[in-house]
Amino acid sequence: MALLAPRAGHARVVGLTGSPGVGKSTSTSALVAAYRRRGMRVGVLAVDPSSPFSGGALLGDRVRMQEHATDDGVFIRSMASRGHLGGLSWATPQALRVLSAAGCDVVLVETVGVGQAEVEIASLADTTLVLLAPGMGDGIQAAKAGILEVADVFVVNKADREGSDSVVRDLRYMLSLGDRRTDDGWRVPIVKTVASRGEGAAEVVDEIERHGAWLASSGRLEQRRIKRAADEVEAIALTSLRVDLRNGALDDLAARVVAGDLDPYAAADELVASLDT
Amino acid sequence: MALLAPRAGHARVVGLTGSPGVGKSTSTSALVAAYRRRGMRVGVLAVDPSSPFSGGALLGDRVRMQEHATDDGVFIRSMASRGHLGGLSWATPQALRVLSAAGCDVVLVETVGVGQAEVEIASLADTTLVLLAPGMGDGIQAAKAGILEVADVFVVNKADREGSDSVVRDLRYMLSLGDRRTDDGWRVPIVKTVASRGEGAAEVVDEIERHGAWLASSGRLEQRRIKRAADEVEAIALTSLRVDLRNGALDDLAARVVAGDLDPYAAADELVASLDT
Repeated sequence: MALLAPRAGHARVVGLTGSPGVGKSTSTSALVAAYRRRGMRVGVLAVDPSSPFSGGALLGDRVRMQEHATDDGVFIRSMASRGHLGGLSWATPQALRVLSAAGCDVVLVETVGVGQAEVEIASLADTTLVLLAPGMGDGIQAAKAGILEVADVFVVNKADREGSDSVVRDLRYMLSLGDRRTDDGWRVPIVKTVASRGEGAAEVVDEIERHGAWLASSGRLEQRRIKRAADEVEAIALTSLRVDLRNGALDDLAARVVAGDLDPYAAADELVASLDT
Repeated sequence: MALLAPRAGHARVVGLTGSPGVGKSTSTSALVAAYRRRGMRVGVLAVDPSSPFSGGALLGDRVRMQEHATDDGVFIRSMASRGHLGGLSWATPQALRVLSAAGCDVVLVETVGVGQAEVEIASLADTTLVLLAPGMGDGIQAAKAGILEVADVFVVNKADREGSDSVVRDLRYMLSLGDRRTDDGWRVPIVKTVASRGEGAAEVVDEIERHGAWLASSGRLEQRRIKRAADEVEAIALTSLRVDLRNGALDDLAARVVAGDLDPYAAADELVASLDT
């Protein structure tokens, strides 16, 4: 990591999230092709936060990405989400750094939009795409799940199907109700795509680039990256402190809590005081 | 919490988990009635880990518990799960302590078996009940989701419906394949219930008591409670350390990571060294 540090952090990080069935993998593949046509090197991280037990990776998605498997301008990695924190893998920021140091101009991080994964992807990404598709009741659910809060660009995929116009209309209406970004100067665009035929992928890349330019010129790109690095440094520090705590007087303190001699807050104070940093 | 400490920790903590639709709330209600018939005071914590955004509580379940609402030997609390850790609420151990100090002999903690919630409930509870019902494909899913690992007692609810015998058979078969507890001396029992009519609730309480007696005589009750207290003390200590870290040099270190002057591991070491404990 020390060796990578000077080379890392140059790739644009783009998050893709959405409910199962909206066509995330197909869209990722179409975006890869669109970026490649512009001569850019692309990394793909497919993170599966839904398998805390199996640790299994997204085999199905790998298959769908096979058309890019022999292109040496494309790096693809599937990761399961492990550990206690739910959502994205601890290893995701490290993988981003490796892909960036390997010369990727853009890294697409794809994850299923369940629970808080979409919030975490937004904290990792420079630009977050939220995918929707007609006929999935996503209009209402979008508002519920808080994805309006994280989307920098909305992509309405399967736009050749009936109902795509009403998805766009619902999104416009919801954006008009609570556009947090009106103050910021960024109006969240809505792009229609048919990812299976590559339609609209170039427009999505245009919007990603436009958002990136806005982030950079407004100083927000730097802010987001510092916030992201701070989260990662904090997480590493807490993991290391947790090991120190486990090696300390924890079991004795816990026994005194069970015996009723000590409340857990006083025990935690003693535990922290016992740390030798 | 310091005032509660000497009075806390006496209640038996029983976890109930299972997929949506197996009848958790109805079963909880039937168990409350069965405990009340034995003259025991009962606390109920209904924890909803599925609503990280809304913070909403289980209104539907509260309605179903209304038959006990005027019984002053019954305490009922619905909690949403909040915060970053996913699964059970941070406040759950505190609520358990309050209910215990309030004189509850047993506290039933009910939560939906999704993701890792069932693993967390098992770490909180002295005895964990896993509920299944016929016709939900639970037989196979049970093995997948790891609930075999956490169940101290299996309850097959809706036993008047077709297919309950095959659920029992599937469970017996799976238990025979991988019974981790054969060494321990506890054989996981399977109880059939029709919770809506209260049938089988007394047998479930018998098995909970039998498991409790086994835990106590084998020394495992003390072990589990010390482990639980250690987890809680550690979580409180980490929360307090996180606040200290945020007040420290984190932003400067993060900026150096983004600039490529420092890798995140070296930054975390500096951050920990800056702590004044």
